[in-house]
Parts: sequence; structure tokens; C-alpha cells
Amino acid sequence: MTYCVAIKVNDGLVFTSDTRTSAGVDDVRTYNKMHVFEYPGERVFVLMSAGNLATTQSVLTQIRRDLAAPVVPMSLMLAKHMYDAAEYVGSLSVNAQKGVSQQSQFGGVDLRATLILGGQIAGEEPALYMIYPEGNCIASSPEMPYLQIGENKYGKPILDRIIHEDTSLEDAARCALVSLDSTMRSNISVGPPLDLSIIRTDGMQIDQKLRLDLDTPFYASLKESWARNIAAIFTNLPRFEWESEVSPQQDMLIDEIKPDQPPVRRIV
Amino acid sequence: MTYCVAIKVNDGLVFTSDTRTSAGVDDVRTYNKMHVFEYPGERVFVLMSAGNLATTQSVLTQIRRDLAAPVVPMSLMLAKHMYDAAEYVGSLSVNAQKGVSQQSQFGGVDLRATLILGGQIAGEEPALYMIYPEGNCIASSPEMPYLQIGENKYGKPILDRIIHEDTSLEDAARCALVSLDSTMRSNISVGPPLDLSIIRTDGMQIDQKLRLDLDTPFYASLKESWARNIAAIFTNLPRFEWESEVSPQQDMLIDEIKPDQPPVRRIV
Repeated sequence: MTYCVAIKVNDGLVFTSDTRTSAGVDDVRTYNKMHVFEYPGERVFVLMSAGNLATTQSVLTQIRRDLAAPVVPMSLMLAKHMYDAAEYVGSLSVNAQKGVSQQSQFGGVDLRATLILGGQIAGEEPALYMIYPEGNCIASSPEMPYLQIGENKYGKPILDRIIHEDTSLEDAARCALVSLDSTMRSNISVGPPLDLSIIRTDGMQIDQKLRLDLDTPFYASLKESWARNIAAIFTNLPRFEWESEVSPQQDMLIDEIKPDQPPVRRIV
Repeated sequence: MTYCVAIKVNDGLVFTSDTRTSAGVDDVRTYNKMHVFEYPGERVFVLMSAGNLATTQSVLTQIRRDLAAPVVPMSLMLAKHMYDAAEYVGSLSVNAQKGVSQQSQFGGVDLRATLILGGQIAGEEPALYMIYPEGNCIASSPEMPYLQIGENKYGKPILDRIIHEDTSLEDAARCALVSLDSTMRSNISVGPPLDLSIIRTDGMQIDQKLRLDLDTPFYASLKESWARNIAAIFTNLPRFEWESEVSPQQDMLIDEIKPDQPPVRRIV
């Protein structure tokens, strides 16, 4: 499996993906699932993929061929709008699946791939699309500012709680990494290292691109900090009425919390 | 759908369930999915169910008939061990499915139900079993101290992070409620009110049983506190190297944090 999440906030776009590919537990490999097409100042795209790896690689190969060809009807360079680019990538995906399906002597192989395409074309707003195996696509929206592909359920609650249009790009990136971290803890089919890309609105280029492994200091620190903070919240959640009003630990905390401190101080 | 989670810690057992039953989005009802069989001082059981409601109700009816009958080969009262009780309930579930399946003129109806049975029989440790539709069962273990049925993925990460053998019963209950709350936020097929039961080890009775609706003060306060604390964590997660070292908000916080304060203070 795979887990990728892309987020659109006012300040730009965030993309995160894992790198584990498995055709069964005895065939586990690491593949890059985040692909960047960058023409600084003109247009910038990030494509993430879940599903059949051969279909994905066929789509990527065709995208690159169309970019390199002198005359083609359509390519990521020729797309006038982000929507056109998403439809173009969708058509490549359908073709890749169709081609193999017709050649195949075997049935029952799932050739489908689901893709996320995000980016910005100069003169347009940044945009984020999920491209279904059928080639059609949906955009993110202010009410649903993130799109997920792959093993999406474990990491959804934290996105639902945190991500809004006005979340900062960096907080969105941290939230996406926490969402991936939670998924990796609960499901071994999603695994490190993680890829992270950030596109700042109107920056017209990849602002940041990181590969984070479990021992990368920033990611190790984020994981540790998150785990510690989540555990610490439990020391200050409301008590049931049958619990003693003031536990020893609470006693200490209540003592330390001055009433004039801002609400954010109360979470200890 | 449904979401139920049961947790076994050293101090006892915690059971939580939602109450939404749906046969499609246009047929949504509220049903109790948590059933208590209590013989104070002798034995106490909690049974939770996910799946086909008719199968579950058939199992419950047969459990009650066997308890009321003067002479039966087996019942929750006659089971010598928790494992025997789980096998007995499993056999009732298989019979319920078989009966309907043979009578049915229609195919394609999913008659399966998955159950969680937990409790304690005097002289034994408390125990927790998941009973599959096939009638067989698995117990919880120190490495896997919780069991989930129904829509289990959204609420799994918080259980994986928090629940250990030595977690207090009340923290386990709060964690289970957060797990349900996160699931309800992300999936409308799981809905309030929530049921919570607690069995304290060797208490040989239901220690607490609560029904919590969205406006029940304790649950409303737990939800609010959790949401606020999760958001607050983001103000203190590690910064990316390109972010200014000290944001205005951090500035204030760092100023307020004295170095001799215990680590738990640092999460603000």
C-alpha cells in the first residue's frame, strides 16, 4: 500500500508521501511516489501516485516523452490550466491501464492507479486534483482542503482537526507528517522514508523538498515531540466525576497554572 | 457501520461503543450495541456487536433464553471459563447466521456479525475476546491490549500511542472516547450517543456505565479539551530549519518556560 496526502492552504501547497511498495509482505520495496515537474517562474507540478506501480511508471514515462517531444498535442508544458493538466494525466493513466489490459493473458490483476496532481501555472491560482483510475478528477475545496490516496483512514482525524484554509504552510507540513507517522505506526504497509514538498503560492517553483528518514533529526524530533505531547494531554483531560478531584499530578499542575495565563497554557 | 473498542489494562476492562446503525444513508437508526450480563460477586460480562443487527439480536435472545431456562447444556451462567463463554457466544452467532441463510429466498445479504465479549468469572483473571462471524475467537494480549470491531482504522493511532497494560482505567476510558470521537468526526457512519462501561479487576460487577451524548457535560468538555490541546501542540512542534528560529508566539512561550520545570511543562 501507500499513503500520500496533499494539502492546499492560502499560502500554498504541501505534498507528503511514503515510499513503501509491496506486492505482498514478501515483496517489499522502496519507490519514490512523489514526482516533480518544475519550470521556475512558469509552472510547477507535483504528481503523487498510489496503486499499480507499472501503470504509474507508464504515466510518468509518457509525461516525460511528451515534454521532450518537439510537437505534441498536449503536455504538462502546453496545458493552459491546472484542470487541463489533470485531465491530460488522467487520459495517460487510462491509456496505460487499457494497453496492459488488452495485452494481458492473465485476468484479475488490478491495474488501477490513483494520482494526486498539484501545482500552479503562472496567472492561475495553485490547485490540487485527485485523478481517479477512470481518468476523471476532483479538485480540493475550501471545505476539503486536503486530498489523500492509499491507506487514508488512520491519518484522516488529525487532518480533519487541524487543516484549514489559513493554516500556515509549515503547520500543514507538520500535520501531514504526523498523519503519515500515525499511519506508519498502525499499518506496516506504509513505510519510511517520507518525501515532503512545499510550493508557496506564486513562488512558481518548489520551495522546499525534503526526504525524511526515521533518523533524520527533524523527523525524529517531530515524532518524539508529538508522541510526548499526545501522552501529556491525557494528564489534563477532564476527570470522570468518580475520580478524586485532585490527583497528585494535577495538584502540581493546578498550582503552577496562574489564572491570568492565556488558554494555551492550560493544556499542560 | 459501527465502531466499538474494548481495552484490557491491569486495573480492569473498558468498553465503548457508538449507537448508529445504518442500512444505507437513508435508513439510519440508533441501537444499543453494548449489552451487560451482571451477576455481582459471581461473574460479569459485556457483549458488543458489529455487523448484521438481526444476527446480533438473535444471539442476544438466545443468551437470555439460556439464562432463563431451568436446564440447558450451556449458558453465560454455566461457563466455567471466559474462553468457554466466548466459544458459546460464537456458536450462537454461527447458528443465527445458518438458520437465516437456509431460510432465505434471497442471496447476497451479509448475515455476519463480529462480537467482543469481555468480563470476569470469579477465580479467573478478567478477559477480552473478539468473536469472529465463523464462531472462533481471539483474546487480547499484553502486546495488543485492545480489540476493535467495525470502522476501526480512524481511531487506531491514538490507541496505539496511549494504551499499555499499566494505563489507568480512567485514562483508557478517555482514550477510547477520543478514539470514538475522532472516528465520528471522520466518518458519519459512526454516531452518538456513546456507551461506556468499566469493569474493575476483581470488582465482579459493572463499576461504571455511562451514556454520553454530544451535549453531556463530561463528553462535551472532553471533546473540547482534546480539540484545543491537539491544536495547541502544533504551536510547539519542532520548526523547519527555514522557519525563523523564534516566532512571536514561541517567543512568549519560551520566555514563560523556566528551565527547571518538568518536561511535561514544555508541551504548551
